Amino acid sequence: MTRTQPKVTPLSFPMLEFEEAVARVRAQVQPLPPRAVTFTQALGHILAEDVVAGESLPPFPASVVDGYAVRAEDGRAPRRVVGEVTAGIAPRRPIGPGEAVWITTGAPIPEGANAVIKVEETERRDGAIVPLVDVRPGDNVRPVGHDIRAGEVVLHKGIHLHPAEVGVLAAVNALQVQVYPRPRVAVMSTGDELREPGAPLAPGQIRDSNRYTLMAAVQEAGGTPIDLGTVPDEEPALRAALERGLDKADVVISSGGVSMGSRDWLKTILAQMGTVHFGRVRVKPGKPITFATVRGKPIFALPGNPVSALVGFYLYVEPALHILAGDTEWERPRVRVRLAHDVRSERGRLEFQRARLEARNDGLWARVTGVQSSSRLLSMVGADVLLRLEADWEYVPAGTEVEGYVIR
Amino acid sequence: MTRTQPKVTPLSFPMLEFEEAVARVRAQVQPLPPRAVTFTQALGHILAEDVVAGESLPPFPASVVDGYAVRAEDGRAPRRVVGEVTAGIAPRRPIGPGEAVWITTGAPIPEGANAVIKVEETERRDGAIVPLVDVRPGDNVRPVGHDIRAGEVVLHKGIHLHPAEVGVLAAVNALQVQVYPRPRVAVMSTGDELREPGAPLAPGQIRDSNRYTLMAAVQEAGGTPIDLGTVPDEEPALRAALERGLDKADVVISSGGVSMGSRDWLKTILAQMGTVHFGRVRVKPGKPITFATVRGKPIFALPGNPVSALVGFYLYVEPALHILAGDTEWERPRVRVRLAHDVRSERGRLEFQRARLEARNDGLWARVTGVQSSSRLLSMVGADVLLRLEADWEYVPAGTEVEGYVIR
Repeated sequence: MTRTQPKVTPLSFPMLEFEEAVARVRAQVQPLPPRAVTFTQALGHILAEDVVAGESLPPFPASVVDGYAVRAEDGRAPRRVVGEVTAGIAPRRPIGPGEAVWITTGAPIPEGANAVIKVEETERRDGAIVPLVDVRPGDNVRPVGHDIRAGEVVLHKGIHLHPAEVGVLAAVNALQVQVYPRPRVAVMSTGDELREPGAPLAPGQIRDSNRYTLMAAVQEAGGTPIDLGTVPDEEPALRAALERGLDKADVVISSGGVSMGSRDWLKTILAQMGTVHFGRVRVKPGKPITFATVRGKPIFALPGNPVSALVGFYLYVEPALHILAGDTEWERPRVRVRLAHDVRSERGRLEFQRARLEARNDGLWARVTGVQSSSRLLSMVGADVLLRLEADWEYVPAGTEVEGYVIR
Repeated sequence: MTRTQPKVTPLSFPMLEFEEAVARVRAQVQPLPPRAVTFTQALGHILAEDVVAGESLPPFPASVVDGYAVRAEDGRAPRRVVGEVTAGIAPRRPIGPGEAVWITTGAPIPEGANAVIKVEETERRDGAIVPLVDVRPGDNVRPVGHDIRAGEVVLHKGIHLHPAEVGVLAAVNALQVQVYPRPRVAVMSTGDELREPGAPLAPGQIRDSNRYTLMAAVQEAGGTPIDLGTVPDEEPALRAALERGLDKADVVISSGGVSMGSRDWLKTILAQMGTVHFGRVRVKPGKPITFATVRGKPIFALPGNPVSALVGFYLYVEPALHILAGDTEWERPRVRVRLAHDVRSERGRLEFQRARLEARNDGLWARVTGVQSSSRLLSMVGADVLLRLEADWEYVPAGTEVEGYVIR
């Protein structure tokens, strides 16, 4: 069969400015419904409820040092040592006037005692111990609830659960907590030319790298990638793959099949299945980029060029993943950097060039990672930032200060 | 049984300065032996070999646009369209003078053709297409090896494998690569007073939170935590747990049992099993902290106080984990911040207070997270930095610029 012109008329979408495209993504995405996880699985999530301490810490008055538990009101008088109490052991009996108990750090203060004298601030005399310092009530005693009071909100809804927060959950016996789940993200590559790494290449074929790049990017962004494989550029196969992704995942990402080629079906199918929020953005790389929602789930159809796909992920997909994970305020960190050399950029489109950072004595400088063509994935290798070069710039001299979007 | 004084004489170690302690850790730790992983498992590792491209990319001359593949030397003459070639399909026959083939982005250039004219730069006339622009050889053609040349080193030993690098592995068919493995880190808590979260507390008992904090910290630092459980403060049990950790892991971390208490066995045991490199550091929190090596493996005995344990992890253990993972140059990021309020610190010891960062128009400011006692894990909650307060400081007024060690 020979065709001499496009078989379908590609849908035409207005060209959006970058900020408007990002705003449309953010407007369509909300945090996923919270879910209970055990505290051992909570790391890296955003907390979806306030956590209240069910217990005080310490739950008993505890010694802060190794020494002797005493009654402060006995002053500097010698004390008869009537026992010992170590961490984990409940004291057997109260102490009375003129008595002391050997106590180790963290052990409970016996009834009757109200202070601890450090061992090095005592001396032994005639089988008793004598304080070498004045003793005040409360000395070296950590009272009940000193660190955490039962009933206190110890962790607030919306915080990131890092190691300290996980430890607090353990400390207050919060065995389960409500968190925003990590988004599950289904990733497919479209195109008849794609072969798996490891498979032999027939003439005209190339290896699919985008799917692996994007699944890694999902993972690095805290999401859970789901592999939808490579999908031929045909309407029924694409539709079936999208449905599979929507069933299994919270987000679907494809790459390829969104330029003006005769066999690019994705936009048409997405417009039939749901709402296309944009189809073109005035940004280089990644002009033909489609964002749609189907049954409330975001779908990103990224370009097939490897750089365009990954830059598109960083610019549009990653913010969505953070919002889904409950981090609604997430913004990519940005740094002001100076160009280590002259840069040329395309007039008329905002451009993101890839660069490495150099920390010099006078601040951060950026050096572009070689040829910036959107097919050259090596331009992303080792890149720390996407340099934002404004649409009306063309020649940017060395030393110019520009904004860098931090990607690693 | 009643004891009135310490049963064992605790080993005495000289008090080290902070920088010397960190230097001793770094001097004892080397990257783990590299291991082959498949490219799909390579994310987050450090590459332990140069990766050379086995294939060129593209492996054939490819069209950069949708349009017509032609012979440039036919100039502006009309071309008869004799076929089509789309991505993934090898062209069936060469094209001759006066001929054109419809070609889509990424498809292989047919033999005989040496340029592609964009579809929008042609018009149809009498069943042929006519170029509306001049055509030069190479126009809109991506030659073999444009992005990657076979034989080229595409990834250098020592780099971090992020998503782009994973994609490059897929693109050049590097199915397996040598990487430095993530360190396996065995974590135990010592102390007779410790109960698991969820278990009822008897008098004198508290919940073990350190193990969960530290396992989470290991995970966040890219290591693989191994749970050794809680271990009673008794010589045979501690020795057995250390042996179990050394068998299963590359690093062992304990918390608790390193102060001067009568039942603190760890230092003594470590000195018998291997070499203790330090046992005390002039730092608050975390003065009684022990670093040893046994059979070449690092062992960190951290204090039992939750803040001391986690700060000790960030200061001494995390650098070791990065070096083991092949990142020998790793340094914790530091920022210059200004104090949002007056701060008091302990004269005579370097102190690390926990603080939140505030980005203001005139730069970064830091606000300390409430009471800084080393038992109060809540002082780590939400903390972005450890503020470095020098040993000879005591009263530090608001507005002073200090160094912050970034922990999240």
